[in-house]
Amino acid sequence: MPSSILTLTTDFGHTDHFVGTMKGVILGIQRAARIVDLCHEVAAFDVAGAAFLISQAYPYFPPKTVHVVVVDPGVGTSRRPILVEAAGQYFIGPDNGVFAFVLSNEKHRVRHITAARYFRKAVSQTFHGRDVFAPAAAHLAKGVPAARFGKLIDDYLRPSSLKPERTARRGWTGQILRIDRFGNLITNFHIDEFQLVEQGPFEMQVGLQYVRKLAQSYGEGDIGEVFAIVGSSGMIEVSANQASAARILGCGVGAPVELRIF
Amino acid sequence: MPSSILTLTTDFGHTDHFVGTMKGVILGIQRAARIVDLCHEVAAFDVAGAAFLISQAYPYFPPKTVHVVVVDPGVGTSRRPILVEAAGQYFIGPDNGVFAFVLSNEKHRVRHITAARYFRKAVSQTFHGRDVFAPAAAHLAKGVPAARFGKLIDDYLRPSSLKPERTARRGWTGQILRIDRFGNLITNFHIDEFQLVEQGPFEMQVGLQYVRKLAQSYGEGDIGEVFAIVGSSGMIEVSANQASAARILGCGVGAPVELRIF
Amino acid sequence: MPSSILTLTTDFGHTDHFVGTMKGVILGIQRAARIVDLCHEVAAFDVAGAAFLISQAYPYFPPKTVHVVVVDPGVGTSRRPILVEAAGQYFIGPDNGVFAFVLSNEKHRVRHITAARYFRKAVSQTFHGRDVFAPAAAHLAKGVPAARFGKLIDDYLRPSSLKPERTARRGWTGQILRIDRFGNLITNFHIDEFQLVEQGPFEMQVGLQYVRKLAQSYGEGDIGEVFAIVGSSGMIEVSANQASAARILGCGVGAPVELRIF
Repeated sequence: MPSSILTLTTDFGHTDHFVGTMKGVILGIQRAARIVDLCHEVAAFDVAGAAFLISQAYPYFPPKTVHVVVVDPGVGTSRRPILVEAAGQYFIGPDNGVFAFVLSNEKHRVRHITAARYFRKAVSQTFHGRDVFAPAAAHLAKGVPAARFGKLIDDYLRPSSLKPERTARRGWTGQILRIDRFGNLITNFHIDEFQLVEQGPFEMQVGLQYVRKLAQSYGEGDIGEVFAIVGSSGMIEVSANQASAARILGCGVGAPVELRIF
Repeated sequence: MPSSILTLTTDFGHTDHFVGTMKGVILGIQRAARIVDLCHEVAAFDVAGAAFLISQAYPYFPPKTVHVVVVDPGVGTSRRPILVEAAGQYFIGPDNGVFAFVLSNEKHRVRHITAARYFRKAVSQTFHGRDVFAPAAAHLAKGVPAARFGKLIDDYLRPSSLKPERTARRGWTGQILRIDRFGNLITNFHIDEFQLVEQGPFEMQVGLQYVRKLAQSYGEGDIGEVFAIVGSSGMIEVSANQASAARILGCGVGAPVELRIF
Repeated sequence: MPSSILTLTTDFGHTDHFVGTMKGVILGIQRAARIVDLCHEVAAFDVAGAAFLISQAYPYFPPKTVHVVVVDPGVGTSRRPILVEAAGQYFIGPDNGVFAFVLSNEKHRVRHITAARYFRKAVSQTFHGRDVFAPAAAHLAKGVPAARFGKLIDDYLRPSSLKPERTARRGWTGQILRIDRFGNLITNFHIDEFQLVEQGPFEMQVGLQYVRKLAQSYGEGDIGEVFAIVGSSGMIEVSANQASAARILGCGVGAPVELRIF
């Protein structure tokens, strides 16, 4: 049996002991665990950001990978810890929307994690990453069957639609899902559903600017020129050659994107 | 025999090659080592910050873990490299206070690391993390007995008291030990020693503000409301719901905290 | 056979899913891979910075290590993916200068990676880190011989001279290669070639200041005093005791450094 892979996504940052502590707990339970840091720089309390991140990464991991996501402003309140089985992998975190894209994209089962024997002995009010999620994930990675962690539920938080809305015969309103480190604006227009963008003239309005060119690579065009491009996740991005489209356009996450096909 | 776990805590940051180089040295000596990054964003030269960090993380690691801490403004001077045996684990770093809390909390033995055969051949004046601490830790993780690294010493740097001082019959003066990423102010009042805070009215003065409420979770109360809470380490923290208590109170590490029990 | 070591150096930062995704791809191909993060905070598109970083780290890694460097402003254009064999190790990345120091320092062979069977099925235009470099590296780490990835080439990007130039009988002009986290200015004067600096009076002009002292440790002299020191890589650095020489001197990467030996 190959050693088990666990990924960690948190808003704990890199300046505190929180992530290291979770790793200690995991290794104490499942010494053979292979821990992969997905991201610890999710903005504090940014559930939507974490949801996007994990959605972009999980498709590239092997079967049975355990993904732990701890962005958890409600820690210590009545929000439930859940275990999601989807796409042949496992997802552990709070029932607060961090798995919105996973639940929207994949057939899934959701369990309410209640089996306290897989938690740390004393569960703090403030650090369920260490006391609940890390030990549960480690036991799961060690081979404890998912069903042992708790009952299936169907009243978990269901995501509202994450897709663009049709607003005219050949017009849609979408939004900026994410701005990456390079300043690329990632929209919720997926190329599989908007192939027309590749086939003819289109216009995408973002902020005050109109984008009408679909580039094949970031290196196309003049430095600073703004264009659309099919990003690595299949989402259409608004980008600029060696420059930050976000800065040029002055747009942020949640800003509307109007698409018209001609 | 399970593979050996080494943790790394440094002020090397994430922009240079220093940490990666240490990992190369470790893997060159002990290929089966499982290296865990605890923190590399300790502020440059912040020995007290490193001491706090390692003190919060080590209790969660399995026996025999080797913790390497390199926050070392005195590198190349006469300060000694030490190996601490405490709590069934090992601690390697400079004798400059980075293990203050470990030494204060645990029964321990301290060795002066002098066995140059466990160093890299040429020891630079400027990078003992790579040339002394990493190779010594890797050899220790590989099974070399602690006694081989050097003699026991008792003139190592001993921490001054890290506890609050009694200043009245029912009054104490403590301090802010740490501000975490979320702006929580972690005090040196440990709940085990100040259970009265849970049992009746109290008043904690931090900066210009008085805190009189002990919350059960960060999510309690209004957004921005300031309260005390027992943190995940057992220390009493001053926190605010989805806001930075540090920013609200304008306090920093070392600021005094006055506790009165009524 | 020991498990294989792969290092990652990118400009992807720690806020996105890019690095985690590459790790998923690698572990999907070679589950036993030991992935070491060298640096993900290379400045966006800073090929020279990445080249310096990898040059400082690779000498400390065991034979057969696979180093993946993805700082790739030309992704999706005609720039070639290459595989460099040098110093008993492997280097995979774009042919854009990221291996300038490796190629300058070591005997080497360079292959143009063309074997698409070692790529992901669909190669995006924008994320060759995930679709080309990570899978190729994982297959190499798994034991696929280097020759299978593509033909030897000799028209790869060759570095211009990276050494100081002689400008007088006992005078040279070099430059600042790098500023590290502590504000140390790392020059391209290597002590092995400029041993005279250790043997007698010298003068190094950086910005408006003259440095005439060679210190043995960072802790020497007064706090804030500027001096030269032989850095951990053998390069002469301009440093200051517990202060940032870069800030004191107001110099950046690429700034000239004049050396005179008396």
